[in-house]
Amino acid sequence: MDYVNGPGRNHLFVPGPVNIPEQVLRAMNRNNEDYRSPAIPAMTKTLLEDVKQIFKTTSGTPFLIPTTGTGAWESALTNTLSPGDKIISFLIGQFSLLWIDQQKRLNFDVDVVESDWGHGANLEVLASKIAEDKSHTIKAICIVHNETATGVTNNLATVRKILDHYQHPALFLVDGVSSICALDFRMDEWGVDVALTGSQKALSLPTGLGIVCASPKALEATKTAKSVRVFFDWNDYLKFYKMGTYWPYTPSIQLLYGLRAALDLLFEEGLENVLARHARLGKATRLAVEAWGLKNCTQKEEWFSDTVTAVVVPPYIDSAEIVKRAWKRYNLSLGLGLNKVAGKVFRIGHLGNLNELQLLGCLAGVEMVLKDIGYPVKFGSGVAAASALLQNSTPLIPSRI
Amino acid sequence: MDYVNGPGRNHLFVPGPVNIPEQVLRAMNRNNEDYRSPAIPAMTKTLLEDVKQIFKTTSGTPFLIPTTGTGAWESALTNTLSPGDKIISFLIGQFSLLWIDQQKRLNFDVDVVESDWGHGANLEVLASKIAEDKSHTIKAICIVHNETATGVTNNLATVRKILDHYQHPALFLVDGVSSICALDFRMDEWGVDVALTGSQKALSLPTGLGIVCASPKALEATKTAKSVRVFFDWNDYLKFYKMGTYWPYTPSIQLLYGLRAALDLLFEEGLENVLARHARLGKATRLAVEAWGLKNCTQKEEWFSDTVTAVVVPPYIDSAEIVKRAWKRYNLSLGLGLNKVAGKVFRIGHLGNLNELQLLGCLAGVEMVLKDIGYPVKFGSGVAAASALLQNSTPLIPSRI
Amino acid sequence: MDYVNGPGRNHLFVPGPVNIPEQVLRAMNRNNEDYRSPAIPAMTKTLLEDVKQIFKTTSGTPFLIPTTGTGAWESALTNTLSPGDKIISFLIGQFSLLWIDQQKRLNFDVDVVESDWGHGANLEVLASKIAEDKSHTIKAICIVHNETATGVTNNLATVRKILDHYQHPALFLVDGVSSICALDFRMDEWGVDVALTGSQKALSLPTGLGIVCASPKALEATKTAKSVRVFFDWNDYLKFYKMGTYWPYTPSIQLLYGLRAALDLLFEEGLENVLARHARLGKATRLAVEAWGLKNCTQKEEWFSDTVTAVVVPPYIDSAEIVKRAWKRYNLSLGLGLNKVAGKVFRIGHLGNLNELQLLGCLAGVEMVLKDIGYPVKFGSGVAAASALLQNSTPLIPSRI
Amino acid sequence: MDYVNGPGRNHLFVPGPVNIPEQVLRAMNRNNEDYRSPAIPAMTKTLLEDVKQIFKTTSGTPFLIPTTGTGAWESALTNTLSPGDKIISFLIGQFSLLWIDQQKRLNFDVDVVESDWGHGANLEVLASKIAEDKSHTIKAICIVHNETATGVTNNLATVRKILDHYQHPALFLVDGVSSICALDFRMDEWGVDVALTGSQKALSLPTGLGIVCASPKALEATKTAKSVRVFFDWNDYLKFYKMGTYWPYTPSIQLLYGLRAALDLLFEEGLENVLARHARLGKATRLAVEAWGLKNCTQKEEWFSDTVTAVVVPPYIDSAEIVKRAWKRYNLSLGLGLNKVAGKVFRIGHLGNLNELQLLGCLAGVEMVLKDIGYPVKFGSGVAAASALLQNSTPLIPSRI
Repeated sequence: MDYVNGPGRNHLFVPGPVNIPEQVLRAMNRNNEDYRSPAIPAMTKTLLEDVKQIFKTTSGTPFLIPTTGTGAWESALTNTLSPGDKIISFLIGQFSLLWIDQQKRLNFDVDVVESDWGHGANLEVLASKIAEDKSHTIKAICIVHNETATGVTNNLATVRKILDHYQHPALFLVDGVSSICALDFRMDEWGVDVALTGSQKALSLPTGLGIVCASPKALEATKTAKSVRVFFDWNDYLKFYKMGTYWPYTPSIQLLYGLRAALDLLFEEGLENVLARHARLGKATRLAVEAWGLKNCTQKEEWFSDTVTAVVVPPYIDSAEIVKRAWKRYNLSLGLGLNKVAGKVFRIGHLGNLNELQLLGCLAGVEMVLKDIGYPVKFGSGVAAASALLQNSTPLIPSRI
Repeated sequence: MDYVNGPGRNHLFVPGPVNIPEQVLRAMNRNNEDYRSPAIPAMTKTLLEDVKQIFKTTSGTPFLIPTTGTGAWESALTNTLSPGDKIISFLIGQFSLLWIDQQKRLNFDVDVVESDWGHGANLEVLASKIAEDKSHTIKAICIVHNETATGVTNNLATVRKILDHYQHPALFLVDGVSSICALDFRMDEWGVDVALTGSQKALSLPTGLGIVCASPKALEATKTAKSVRVFFDWNDYLKFYKMGTYWPYTPSIQLLYGLRAALDLLFEEGLENVLARHARLGKATRLAVEAWGLKNCTQKEEWFSDTVTAVVVPPYIDSAEIVKRAWKRYNLSLGLGLNKVAGKVFRIGHLGNLNELQLLGCLAGVEMVLKDIGYPVKFGSGVAAASALLQNSTPLIPSRI
Repeated sequence: MDYVNGPGRNHLFVPGPVNIPEQVLRAMNRNNEDYRSPAIPAMTKTLLEDVKQIFKTTSGTPFLIPTTGTGAWESALTNTLSPGDKIISFLIGQFSLLWIDQQKRLNFDVDVVESDWGHGANLEVLASKIAEDKSHTIKAICIVHNETATGVTNNLATVRKILDHYQHPALFLVDGVSSICALDFRMDEWGVDVALTGSQKALSLPTGLGIVCASPKALEATKTAKSVRVFFDWNDYLKFYKMGTYWPYTPSIQLLYGLRAALDLLFEEGLENVLARHARLGKATRLAVEAWGLKNCTQKEEWFSDTVTAVVVPPYIDSAEIVKRAWKRYNLSLGLGLNKVAGKVFRIGHLGNLNELQLLGCLAGVEMVLKDIGYPVKFGSGVAAASALLQNSTPLIPSRI
Repeated sequence: MDYVNGPGRNHLFVPGPVNIPEQVLRAMNRNNEDYRSPAIPAMTKTLLEDVKQIFKTTSGTPFLIPTTGTGAWESALTNTLSPGDKIISFLIGQFSLLWIDQQKRLNFDVDVVESDWGHGANLEVLASKIAEDKSHTIKAICIVHNETATGVTNNLATVRKILDHYQHPALFLVDGVSSICALDFRMDEWGVDVALTGSQKALSLPTGLGIVCASPKALEATKTAKSVRVFFDWNDYLKFYKMGTYWPYTPSIQLLYGLRAALDLLFEEGLENVLARHARLGKATRLAVEAWGLKNCTQKEEWFSDTVTAVVVPPYIDSAEIVKRAWKRYNLSLGLGLNKVAGKVFRIGHLGNLNELQLLGCLAGVEMVLKDIGYPVKFGSGVAAASALLQNSTPLIPSRI
């Protein structure tokens, strides 16, 4: 029995890994190559230049690390900090929790600022801590731009404002795993020191690349950072950048070509149009949730996420049953509720290379699952609410005008 | 500018070519091979045996011809008939029209039984013609099982009953291009003499294989058929079948492996389940059309097609604009109205490897296009009608229970 | 047991189907599309324009027919000739034999000019027949540019000279299946009226496209040609060319994108460089054969083929055993001897997207097979002879200079 | 200009990444999937069970880590050792050098036993050090099974014998990157505590999986190992193994399916047959080198590697020119000489899914390059020597008998 074989396509709406466009699948359908020939360095050079655009940085230095988001986190921390360094970290959901767990295990002195799940990072607390820290013992602020578990987007511009206001030199480290290429992210403007994402998120590639970008200040910090690191050491990359061979160890040839294709698609659509598309799909999803009479896990509009929506189910329903049923009956993959919100929320990921009708198919599917599971949904209600928005706001496909 | 690159998937709802499952794409992703090695004949032998199941025949002889449906038509006619032979053919839409055009150009004496577009073949006329033809001058009955232009399914069992009732020996030639593997088709039970389909239809492959099946009586007819034929000559195939090498000329290696994968998927799902899925999706589509307040081009329920629905638009709307708009704005590919119904209908193909949520995404898309074009559709209305049926009737995916 | 799974690559050296480059496999790795959207006609228009270059014609009209070489033959004949028309056809091997068989079955009055297998077309006989035909009863000359069964290339320029010398209006129909894109072929300069090839030959695609090109004179001939044709009728294509939709019936979307990629590769390498590569590989193969002490089936140097070499084995060896052994032990696919030369020759195809080291691997393999089979070959002898030539003549890869 | 486009295939003979079989490319040609659905854990469970076979272990616990060989090294060390721990490590070439560099940077107390490049690990020194270490201050022996830079295979059985002889409890950590699945490796029999490889080596996959296997003793060591680790922490995996969800973070769906296909191919061929094939190809390569009058970098027969051969060039030749030329002219990818042997050796990788004729093509190519570069090679000499062996020892392909 092959789990994979249902009739028709799988409808992949977990908040990562996301759908891979055919153009990227094609680009990756290839044999291995010698990564020490002139071809791969030439390609890598261009990739490194172009990938800066997804971070909106000109001064940053990107690293394409053969790892996952978890590895990218580790890379961001160990290259810039030393054991015992005091850092402020915001706990607002499962992924910020996991990052904090990592921070602790890497022996940093983590000052955890916790919010209820569904709330954003408490930046007022940040402000007061920064204000108090005249001696600059705080070495870094670690924040998840978009908490994938609860669908909460934090306001990074405000973080920068707080640091600037108090002229605090703390490093500003951002997990952009479920935001970069999908939500508005401005590395240079916001003075982010390390930003990172994973290939399987909004870039719409397979898992396997941790894409990390370091500001000049972050690179400077590597010189004094005493955290032990080898595989994740940026300096090994920088050494090979200088030599023009680019790779301290073997990259995935396929992911490089895939990244090339993914960036080409992004640039052809236009990064601003990509963000607008995510905004449109996110808003449409929230309108559907509202139409179903369900609550968004996210507690305030300012935190609404345009890449993932966590939907709160009534107490008499187990959200895990929704996810299970969706997969078993409709070939629809939804995200589970995790940890504190397990059983209480299910998640609709709406990021990456996705369009309106894919989302509407998903929403129609959620309606059927809700009915299956005993929730009195009105068929078509969510789809109608979403469609009204989308029909009003979807642009023509530029290449087809 | 590459027309192909819109964000997200293309929603392919023309009544062919249809969506190719990933399993089939994978199977076809391969280099050429020597078709004279033992591997390809061994594989072909199994394919020929297995492909009989899609025709529901045990006595038929299948041919996998490197051609399209049009070539398959020509193969059916020229192998069994001689120039001047009298045949009865039913004109009920664009594809029956094209087949009749071919029949005439191949110099048969075609007695065309015409119906209004949207109606099925007039089998009463057939009955009277057969009744009158005591001398058996009628050599063949040519009928399209499912007229793709109007979404009309003809009743083949009745054709057989008429022939049997009058003990008429005419050959029974059936275009099953948009029916076989999707609609109930029973070659042996209905005494069909030649049945044919194209790989890009319900089998969900690329275009390139005309799949033709001949009854023993049809094979017998080849001995006296005087129509000139070489490329399409079944006898060349039969000669190579006998030798065990199977191919009179080079087949597409990729399509053979693709056909293997497509049959494996069909058999894993179960042919009856596949038919039930098409019935479910067809019915859902018709319920949506009704909910939109639009008419089905098909005039009677007995002719409703479970593979394609032709939707009649109000006189103030040009259906071609709907098709154009769907493609340009929502990456949705719908079928145009053809010939007599050009501008008057658009078509939703719902055949092949397709599931419920894909269809619902399409229906939601049609709603938005209708709104775009000025038709006062109520958002979610068609989706709701379809969902109510589908939520009630969709089985669990067997491999996931 | 899967015949396909030996360790490593299959070494495909039959004279078609040939190796598909990765770039083409990638281009073809895609879902179906609506061929009635603006995208496919736009692409087809460019393909039709570009494909003329492989025929070296500016005045010709190309047709991309979903068929094989056999179908392309039929298309060439039936569109330009009427039953009973007298044609001259040269029988020099299995493929010319098969074409002649088709010509006869299509009811032409075929005057067969036969040569011993291994010889080229007897153009002296042609000259005398043309000289005698003052009343122009001969309607067409049919000739295979390169006889794939014996590795014999005919001199098409001489055919034209003969026709011109006698101012004879016969149509000049050329099977370029194993020549076009590999051997020097000049449609306009040589006044060829219909030229044709198959996608699986030097173009290095899967089987499935018969690529036919018609001169203005050939198009004119369609107006009076009485041969029955529908599927193969060029006029159906021309009608759709005029409408700008291009396709009278469904094309293979995958093969269109594949053809685009194949042409791009050809043009990037440069057609003249492609021909030079084939000349180099053909010569290298012949040097190897000579070094092994074996004979070339081709009897004179002027007929040597740069796309396929038929190697004559000593009488005590069955060449079919060589082919079988090569496949079973070394994953090497060689061509069988066909018909008159069955058991007497085996064939090495060296056409399409192929390079020096691939060929040398094949030659080394042939040496091992010869030893296996009891022929006293000196290991390395053929490879050495071929290498000496190739090391002297292979250019640098332009993109890597 | 696209470096990739030379005519024909790239001949990939670097000692990794190696050629990917078509079966694996096909398996990987797929969209992302939800790794939290029941499908991926079910598949992972089987993979973990099956992957033990490539290590020849029943008691080991495997980890499929989204990383490269460098990461796998780090995982092996940090999970079993604490900073300051004394380890013995053998420096015999570039890859052992890099591992030692990592060991030092991870703050172990590394006792480096150096040999001349081209020599194996000095196990006599090991024996004396172990003999002396009565107090068991040595915590681990780190050894590269096959040094990829020099083509030297170390004798792991002897290492075990030494440890056993002195009843020394040191952990036995083995880099099997260019050996496992290609050379005889026996984790259980040799009492290896951690063994590791990378997916892009003999398994013939893309880069991206570090495959690590830990003995029960190694797992026990994790409990006291104080090295800081998070991403590479086996305990995170073990926790998820226990829960049955298997993945602490997102795996590459494509690599999992690819690994499934790669293991299926290995098991179908038979692991012992795979090793025999590598032995055959390795021996053939060495015979060719000898026939060319060149020296093997490996100084004694007992160290000859069956996965890579480092060929010493005469002093008047720069081996980097050979590599460059091979790529630029013949689309042949050879390995560079690294570090101490830069300019002095070039390397032929002969591991992974590779067959005899591929290797012979490579050897013929090397002959041409040698001539290009001014070395007086006799064409065909190496090929002849290799062919004589291979023709004598290559078995029939089992599925084709």
